Amino acid sequence: MTIQFGPDYVRAIAPYQGGKPIAEVAREFGLDEAKIIKLASNENPLGMPDSAKQAMLAAMGDIGRYPDSNGFDLKQTIINKYKVPADWITLGNGSNDILELAAHAFVQPGQSVVYAQYSFAVYALATQAIGARAIVVAAKDYGHDLPAMAKAITADTRLVFIANPNNPTGTFIPAAEIEAFLAKVPQDVVVVLDEAYNEYLAPELQYDSIAWVQQYPNLLVSRTLSKAYGLAGLRVGFGIAQPVITDLLNRIRQPFNVNSMAQAAAVAALNDSAFLQKSAQLNAEGYQQLTQAFDAMDLEYVKSYGNFVLVRVGSDDAAGARVNLELLKRGVIVRPVGNYGLPQWLRISIGLPQENAAFIKALKAVLS
Amino acid sequence: MTIQFGPDYVRAIAPYQGGKPIAEVAREFGLDEAKIIKLASNENPLGMPDSAKQAMLAAMGDIGRYPDSNGFDLKQTIINKYKVPADWITLGNGSNDILELAAHAFVQPGQSVVYAQYSFAVYALATQAIGARAIVVAAKDYGHDLPAMAKAITADTRLVFIANPNNPTGTFIPAAEIEAFLAKVPQDVVVVLDEAYNEYLAPELQYDSIAWVQQYPNLLVSRTLSKAYGLAGLRVGFGIAQPVITDLLNRIRQPFNVNSMAQAAAVAALNDSAFLQKSAQLNAEGYQQLTQAFDAMDLEYVKSYGNFVLVRVGSDDAAGARVNLELLKRGVIVRPVGNYGLPQWLRISIGLPQENAAFIKALKAVLS
Repeated sequence: MTIQFGPDYVRAIAPYQGGKPIAEVAREFGLDEAKIIKLASNENPLGMPDSAKQAMLAAMGDIGRYPDSNGFDLKQTIINKYKVPADWITLGNGSNDILELAAHAFVQPGQSVVYAQYSFAVYALATQAIGARAIVVAAKDYGHDLPAMAKAITADTRLVFIANPNNPTGTFIPAAEIEAFLAKVPQDVVVVLDEAYNEYLAPELQYDSIAWVQQYPNLLVSRTLSKAYGLAGLRVGFGIAQPVITDLLNRIRQPFNVNSMAQAAAVAALNDSAFLQKSAQLNAEGYQQLTQAFDAMDLEYVKSYGNFVLVRVGSDDAAGARVNLELLKRGVIVRPVGNYGLPQWLRISIGLPQENAAFIKALKAVLS
Repeated sequence: MTIQFGPDYVRAIAPYQGGKPIAEVAREFGLDEAKIIKLASNENPLGMPDSAKQAMLAAMGDIGRYPDSNGFDLKQTIINKYKVPADWITLGNGSNDILELAAHAFVQPGQSVVYAQYSFAVYALATQAIGARAIVVAAKDYGHDLPAMAKAITADTRLVFIANPNNPTGTFIPAAEIEAFLAKVPQDVVVVLDEAYNEYLAPELQYDSIAWVQQYPNLLVSRTLSKAYGLAGLRVGFGIAQPVITDLLNRIRQPFNVNSMAQAAAVAALNDSAFLQKSAQLNAEGYQQLTQAFDAMDLEYVKSYGNFVLVRVGSDDAAGARVNLELLKRGVIVRPVGNYGLPQWLRISIGLPQENAAFIKALKAVLS
């Protein structure tokens, strides 16, 4: 008999399916890497800001040393930008780390975690990894149904994940609805408000989630540098919450979870508002470009507030996988979302104008 | 009443105490950063190899993209170097990540983990963080007592941590003793053999732990790039084990746990045998320099096989903290190990000849 290790709930986990790396697609399909277009991982098509590159070059002399475990400079930058005290900040190896830390810190095996259907895959993974019970609340118009989520909370619920905007659907929850939800959630249930795509919101939709953290000791706001800030390759995210939460996250955080290059680049990127503005502008234009093409092709899509669009590419449940494969053959990488229960859809990250155009051309060829 | 979050065992964790960063000591003691000597974190005093720096520069164009979640190039390098298949490899954000993944993957709250007194602090932290029970086996001559550790394993033990060489004491377990231990451990108990300091072993002490992995499906060998390879600031480690273990680690691993700069630099460093040799040579010379000084000062030290030496700086339990503070005032950072139950000792990382000399001079001044 083969020995099995680990609890059943760990063995049952299906690993995360990320966007295929360009090099992998090139190897698999015999394509030229330079000609491949990747619109699969909601990355910033501008790459990283030059300010971050300069900061990385300046930090290179010190790589033999461990990173600053307390992230002094990076926390100072966050303090200045968000007007929060140092002991409200948890640094993460991407916001993925913050999401996992929350599950590990607040939930024991057998307790429950509430999140929405069609929300970020890591919520399910983090829940499974600790042997907790997932309470998945049906989506409403592909987005969060917050009143239903509030009702779904049980006595053993310790954590709720909310994404705003949501990935992979792009939906947005207006501030007033979140406020109403926070007022209803029991005080001993931690709410993670995952704002990975916050920087793409139009100014009139922006809201002050830090003020909610001030009001609600059970609220943890999560941010990432992987999207609008262009630092996906470096893994930096952070959480903002009152010390009653932050202190626990920092107790279980790996002491050197954010590496030195990541910390240096993040300081520069957070201060680079020109780059952020340029990224948001490019994204808004790309969204118009993609959705006008979808309209012209009579394809259904979900109105998106992020840097990606969810589009329905067929009416049978093999459509997403089929169209995805045909796009891969043409050197275009997008994201199939069958694992999210959306087998008729593909998620398209918004790229540079010429990348969007190449994708549209390929999609037309595949669907015709 | 203040609401408390999280289980008791998480609230009880005392966070990891790392070596003080140079910038922090400069701020605290009003010192010039450039004049501070840090021998506190077992870092490579040569810094990173130039080959790694070149690899980082070459990788900088791609930072807007997520890292390769499967670490294709880095795994190929490990495959070539250690002659193991890809599905035996788990990449970690430093070997700290591998140690934590093992605890999360194999141990449930209430089950037990066995490790030695005076062994690496992360074993205790990883055990506490998951609400497991620590079985700490008394050290023998400041090192592992493997026969006692084998006897300490109970029916609910799921994991054993062994460090060879051990940190913070520097002790070494000969290969034959580890082999005897592995033969005794129940097949369903995972043994983590943490070889963070392996590269400093003299050739005649080197042993083939990969052959043991072949023989024992319950063995996980952990390696780091933070020590002899000079990449502490980047966080890269890896685990080698049969797929029955590796598969589970990869299920709970954060998909992008090792960032792009770290992967690129690690490929270069693993191939840079000249740098490794130079580092080991410098370390052997520095060990002679430090221990000759300790002998001359009539200070007790533990024979070390790593890149650091544990030295007794007084016979009262305030000695370590007192001498440490005086060294800090003189701009020399070493590691107090009171939290390891060694309050009369300090751990000194082996530095460049002039750094070792400056430390010896400061120590003489403090102790006179």
